[in-house]
Amino acid sequence: MTFSVGLLGHGTVGAAFAGLLGRRADAIEAALGTRPELVGVLTRSRGDFDDILERSDLIVELIGGVEPAREYVLRALSAGRHVVTANKQLLSQHGEELYAAAREAAVQLRFEAAVGGVVPAIRVIAETLAGAHIERVHGIVNGTTNFILSEMARTGASYDAALREAQARGYAEADPTDDVTGKDAAAKMAILARLAFGAPVRLDEVPYEGIEHLTSDDIAYAQELGLSLKLIGSAERTGGGIAVRVYPAFLYKEHPLASVNGSFNAVTIESPDITEITLSGPGAGGPQTASAVLGDVVSAMIPPPTLPLPTQELELIADVESGFYLHLEVADRPGVLAQIAEVLGLQSVSVKSVVQRGLGDNARLVMVVHPVLESKFSAAVDLIGRLDFLRAKPRVIRVIEEHF
Amino acid sequence: MTFSVGLLGHGTVGAAFAGLLGRRADAIEAALGTRPELVGVLTRSRGDFDDILERSDLIVELIGGVEPAREYVLRALSAGRHVVTANKQLLSQHGEELYAAAREAAVQLRFEAAVGGVVPAIRVIAETLAGAHIERVHGIVNGTTNFILSEMARTGASYDAALREAQARGYAEADPTDDVTGKDAAAKMAILARLAFGAPVRLDEVPYEGIEHLTSDDIAYAQELGLSLKLIGSAERTGGGIAVRVYPAFLYKEHPLASVNGSFNAVTIESPDITEITLSGPGAGGPQTASAVLGDVVSAMIPPPTLPLPTQELELIADVESGFYLHLEVADRPGVLAQIAEVLGLQSVSVKSVVQRGLGDNARLVMVVHPVLESKFSAAVDLIGRLDFLRAKPRVIRVIEEHF
Repeated sequence: MTFSVGLLGHGTVGAAFAGLLGRRADAIEAALGTRPELVGVLTRSRGDFDDILERSDLIVELIGGVEPAREYVLRALSAGRHVVTANKQLLSQHGEELYAAAREAAVQLRFEAAVGGVVPAIRVIAETLAGAHIERVHGIVNGTTNFILSEMARTGASYDAALREAQARGYAEADPTDDVTGKDAAAKMAILARLAFGAPVRLDEVPYEGIEHLTSDDIAYAQELGLSLKLIGSAERTGGGIAVRVYPAFLYKEHPLASVNGSFNAVTIESPDITEITLSGPGAGGPQTASAVLGDVVSAMIPPPTLPLPTQELELIADVESGFYLHLEVADRPGVLAQIAEVLGLQSVSVKSVVQRGLGDNARLVMVVHPVLESKFSAAVDLIGRLDFLRAKPRVIRVIEEHF
Repeated sequence: MTFSVGLLGHGTVGAAFAGLLGRRADAIEAALGTRPELVGVLTRSRGDFDDILERSDLIVELIGGVEPAREYVLRALSAGRHVVTANKQLLSQHGEELYAAAREAAVQLRFEAAVGGVVPAIRVIAETLAGAHIERVHGIVNGTTNFILSEMARTGASYDAALREAQARGYAEADPTDDVTGKDAAAKMAILARLAFGAPVRLDEVPYEGIEHLTSDDIAYAQELGLSLKLIGSAERTGGGIAVRVYPAFLYKEHPLASVNGSFNAVTIESPDITEITLSGPGAGGPQTASAVLGDVVSAMIPPPTLPLPTQELELIADVESGFYLHLEVADRPGVLAQIAEVLGLQSVSVKSVVQRGLGDNARLVMVVHPVLESKFSAAVDLIGRLDFLRAKPRVIRVIEEHF
């Protein structure tokens, strides 16, 4: 059985989505029994919308902007096709019209990729928390500005210098206006507020302030007060209504968004029932956004009532690579470190960092080693444990490295 | 229209769920057009399972343990009822049997609350990332041990003292064995591994190590190396198979799990397509777990194809309370701070912290004020801006406090 996907738009995200769908089709078919297939692509220069619509079960809209995206999405929905879109402009300006069209046609309209890249804010608010009373949503929903502010904080660079760095690294566009003024974040917060509070909120109702006037001076002073500076999208219940805004704000270090740095996005959802949930991940990028789109496509393929059959015969493996912390109490005499290093070297264990402390006649050696197969490290520690200058049993704890 | 819910078990979570369902029924009915109603509760001393099953569209199983929970869930599924459960023991030991029963009956079996409390790890792995190739899942999935390790790191307390503190605060049970040995975390990782890799993994296949042998000494030394200690559940692809284990491990400060403290839970999911997503929130507690259960119930009520109608006429409010950072350049002469404080006081603005710096004849005053209505703070800043000793325009940035 196949599930036919029509793709509108073939820019960075569109191309990444087409590639990802092709690479993952086998695995999805194995899990769901249905194979997603790309049956047509509409670009400026090729493809025909009516023809693609006719042959599709679902339309993926990655054109961006309001028109002709709005017309295509409305026509797809009223023709009874599911739609997945990443289009924040469209949803923040014409959301109610589209949501109504999807309800009338009883088809799915999904848009996880419109907010926060791969950060699953839409699904968690709309589904996990469908039964909860949400009090407040705070988000870092623009990766460009978060990168710029992180650079200013990390290096003391000026706003202009940090913006140039962001442009050089591809985190900011040549014309960064929509990002740095807060307008992009405002569109995303309008979408999140609609989901969190069930109240229609349009982009033109969301006041926004940007980061262009911020100085590294502000950041440095605030660091002394334990504060870090972020561009925050805020949607909260207050005084019987709701307030939805975007503004630069200081966060105390304990706030879950305070440690979200670089181009990452994150959203914190507060509710008296749950305290708070924080979701974080890469905020943009073609492959990440494409992955969020594919998640929506799979959800539309089969609203998941049950867990699919196990798809893989995977062996459970016990001997795995890991970094390790090794704590040794040894006699404080010449040659000790050399002998230990030799034993480690024979088992291909490579030392990353060492702290040594004298303790009277003894010494304490604490080291971290680079990832190595556990069996090799255990063999080395067994040998070390038998050395005559050991004063206590070696202590071993695994160390996890960042993989990315 | 009503949707009938039968509840098995009325302990901490069961009672919290029954209360939450009652409080949220109106809002859910407004959004979905269907009202969830509790039609029966089974406890040790009252209720009849067959009678409750007969009258229910969905069964919520919060008894815990393997039997009779297993029998009830299987009977509910084969009778064509959706089931929501928080039972990690049952799923990690008999998951395949239950998943198969749900597939055969084509009903939903949901279990978000079985792992990580309200942290939406199940939904994000099973739905958002249904199309992705997941490489690795790292989780802090036991709040008791995370609280104990956080206390040891924060106060230098011994393991025994930190455990007693956890028991005093209700984060650890009188018999903490399942938590501190890592067994509870192993059950949760078996469930996550099944979802992430589509491969059946049972609790008895997951090796686990606990935290009982850890010393505050290890933690202190490791802090010097930039490491923080967590009980980590790990499920990863490796060497053509998968490895699923639980062990204490050091994390470098940059790792997204390194800053998850206290009784919070968090899960990081890594995939080449998305880099990584991190989800965090309260790991346990009756109300939090009940909220995760209710999210599953609502999902079963209506696999959400479309966004519900707006349910609320909420006013958009512009004048909101906020903390503020205020940066002033002033002449360095007596009485300046007093005058500024007086103006702030007249507008009910209360100062939280101040940093003052001399700059030749001038001084720089940087302060953070407690939350106050923006209109009041703006009025105060307008007045301050007119004082004759001001040397530059006041600079204002909002400050966000933790609400919990």
